[in-house]
Amino acid sequence: MLSKNKTKFINSIKKKKYRELHQCFFAEGEKLVDELLNSDFQITDILSTKDWIEKNANRLKSEVEITEISETELKKISSLSTPNKVFAIAAQPELSYNQNEIQNELSLILDTINDPGNLGTIIRIADWFGIKNIFCSNDSVDVYNPKVVQASMGAIFRVKIHYVDLTEFLPKFKQSENFKIFGTLLDGNNIYNEQLSKNGFIIMGSESHGISEYLRTFINTKLFIPNFPENIKTSESLNISTATAIVCSEFRRRF
Amino acid sequence: MLSKNKTKFINSIKKKKYRELHQCFFAEGEKLVDELLNSDFQITDILSTKDWIEKNANRLKSEVEITEISETELKKISSLSTPNKVFAIAAQPELSYNQNEIQNELSLILDTINDPGNLGTIIRIADWFGIKNIFCSNDSVDVYNPKVVQASMGAIFRVKIHYVDLTEFLPKFKQSENFKIFGTLLDGNNIYNEQLSKNGFIIMGSESHGISEYLRTFINTKLFIPNFPENIKTSESLNISTATAIVCSEFRRRF
Repeated sequence: MLSKNKTKFINSIKKKKYRELHQCFFAEGEKLVDELLNSDFQITDILSTKDWIEKNANRLKSEVEITEISETELKKISSLSTPNKVFAIAAQPELSYNQNEIQNELSLILDTINDPGNLGTIIRIADWFGIKNIFCSNDSVDVYNPKVVQASMGAIFRVKIHYVDLTEFLPKFKQSENFKIFGTLLDGNNIYNEQLSKNGFIIMGSESHGISEYLRTFINTKLFIPNFPENIKTSESLNISTATAIVCSEFRRRF
Repeated sequence: MLSKNKTKFINSIKKKKYRELHQCFFAEGEKLVDELLNSDFQITDILSTKDWIEKNANRLKSEVEITEISETELKKISSLSTPNKVFAIAAQPELSYNQNEIQNELSLILDTINDPGNLGTIIRIADWFGIKNIFCSNDSVDVYNPKVVQASMGAIFRVKIHYVDLTEFLPKFKQSENFKIFGTLLDGNNIYNEQLSKNGFIIMGSESHGISEYLRTFINTKLFIPNFPENIKTSESLNISTATAIVCSEFRRRF
C-alpha cells in the first residue's frame, strides 16, 4: 500500500531541486524498468502491481524496498498518461570520465539544451551510434527530468551524461590533427564532403540561439547539413535532435 | 475585442472534428504567421495585439477579418505556453497530386503515425530535403492538429500532406527499375551500402508497430540504419523522426 509519506516524497522528486537533494530519480513502465534492472544503476524502491512483482521478484536485490500498489495508486504517482505496472526509484550515479579515453572517442557537447524531449532523443541517438559520453552545459535541462528519462527509452542507462562548465571543459581538450572539435553552424561546410574523424567532439547548439559565440572559437571544423535543392527557400534550420541524428550517422558511416 | 462567439469557435477548432467541419485550422505566433502570410494559404481571421496589426496590416488581404485583442485575451485562446502576439485562422487547402510527377520525385509514406510532434518534425525534415509530398495513412494524426502545425515551424505551408488509404494508393505505383519502394525495417540492409534512387517512395512505420505486414509486401528495398559498433547491445530502435532524418539525408547525399 502506498503511504502518504511515500506519495509526498515521489511528488517532490518530480522537481529537480529535490532530485538533487536526494540524489535520486525515477523511471516508469515495464520496458524502461526492465532496462533499468539490466543496468548498473542502483534501484532503491519499486512500487508496482502484484503481477509485476510476481514476475520480477527474483531480479530485485535484497536492499530494494518493494511496495505492492494498486493501479489506482499507481495513477496517483505516475507522470505517464497511461501508467504501466511499475514505478522505480534509483540513485543518481556518480559519473566520471577519463580524459585520455575521451581523446580517443567521439563525444557530444550540448550547449544549453532546454527541451527534455530533445535531450532524451539525443541520448537515444548517442546510444545507437556508440557515443559513450555527452557533455552538457550546466544550464541545460536535467537529464533526470522524467520526460528526458522517458524519451531516452532506456538509453540513459548506457550513455554517460555529464554536466560541466563548457568554458572550462573545452580548453582541456586542445584541438589538434588527432583531436578535432566539430560544430554544426549555418555557415559551415557541406558535411558530406568534409573530412570527419573517428574521435573528437561534436558541439550542438541550443535550438533558439545555436552555439554561443565563445564556444564557436573552439570549433576547427564547421559543418552544415545542406538542404535540397540547395538554392530553394526551405525551413530555416533543422530541429537539434534531427540535426544530431544526421551528423552522428554521417560520422559513423565513414568508419 | 474578442467576442464570446469567436472564443467558442476557436475553442471548437482545437478539435479535429470541428476543424474538418469548418475546413480550417489555426497558426500562432509571429514566426509561424509570418510563414503563413508568405504562403498560398488563405487566411480568414487574424486576432492580434495592436502593435502586430500596425506592423503587418499592409500584408493582409482585404477579405481577412482582423480583430484587435489584448494580451490577456490572446492568452485565453492560445494553445501555447507563451502566447506570442498573433493568432491566425486559415482555410485547409484542397490538395491534389499528379501521378506522373510523383513517379519522378522522392516522397514519404507514413504508416499510422500518431505523435503530433513526430509528424511536425518529419514535415520539417521533408521541407529541408526538398520532398514535396507526404502520404499518410488515414488513421494518422491530423496534420492540422495545433501541435503538428507548431512543430513543423512553417514547413507545413510548403510540403503537401495527403491522407490516403495506403492499401489502395500504393498499388497505383508499381515498383520497377525506375520507381522503387523503400522501407526501413530492422531486418533491412545497411542503408550506407544499398543502392538508392532520386525518386521513389520511402515508407516509415509507426513507432510502436513499424510498417504493417500488408504494406511490407510493397517494399522492394529494405533499409536499415546500422548501429555502432554493430555487435554491441544498444537501443532497440531509433525514434521515427530521427530515422526519417537519417534516411532522407542519405538519399540526398547521393544525388
